[in-house]
Amino acid sequence: MRFDPATLSYNSDGLVPVIAQEAETGEVLMLAWMNAEAVARTLATDRVTYWSRSRQAFWIKGETSGHVQHLVEMRVDCDRDALLVLVRQEGPACHTNRRVCFYTAVRDGDELELMAPD
Amino acid sequence: MRFDPATLSYNSDGLVPVIAQEAETGEVLMLAWMNAEAVARTLATDRVTYWSRSRQAFWIKGETSGHVQHLVEMRVDCDRDALLVLVRQEGPACHTNRRVCFYTAVRDGDELELMAPD
Repeated sequence: MRFDPATLSYNSDGLVPVIAQEAETGEVLMLAWMNAEAVARTLATDRVTYWSRSRQAFWIKGETSGHVQHLVEMRVDCDRDALLVLVRQEGPACHTNRRVCFYTAVRDGDELELMAPD
Repeated sequence: MRFDPATLSYNSDGLVPVIAQEAETGEVLMLAWMNAEAVARTLATDRVTYWSRSRQAFWIKGETSGHVQHLVEMRVDCDRDALLVLVRQEGPACHTNRRVCFYTAVRDGDELELMAPD
């Protein structure tokens, strides 16, 4: 069956949450959002393109930072309301210059920072 | 620093998206949602507890199916508006009886089912 971005279930803002995972290591890098056009552009270009909710604009990951996400494979979940993108990440994925955005762990009720900026 | 669920950034429905990842294998299992109370209950019980948007009720994962998610570690992202839970999953994570919810790949513009129900 052909994949059509219009068949996904978007929220009231027309967005779907997207998990980016490093294809090689399995590390979860970040969570961001796409609209239907961002899904189409990501597939057409193999460069992961989100919708920036703060800037209200397309966000080609790495366009300014150089920290590009090359699409390896896109996956759709059972309810068609979430995406997983397997990527090859250049440089740190997080805007704080850390490898991943999920660098804070909760251990015994305390927050613990697991990694420093690169 | 003590972790306080109230310091997370929730959406207008009071929810935050949560990625569940198998701690052992790194496989991304599913994406679901928690409110502040679900975050607190998950940490207090070490059993992953979501907020079901369809049922508008707490959803202790596996309570009816037996497919429990045991919390290994909770992680918070840089913007405090997404969570990653590393879990030990009993049985399939997906309600379709597949190991993971992200079982549909997009390859060359076509949808391809990667795994059958258990």
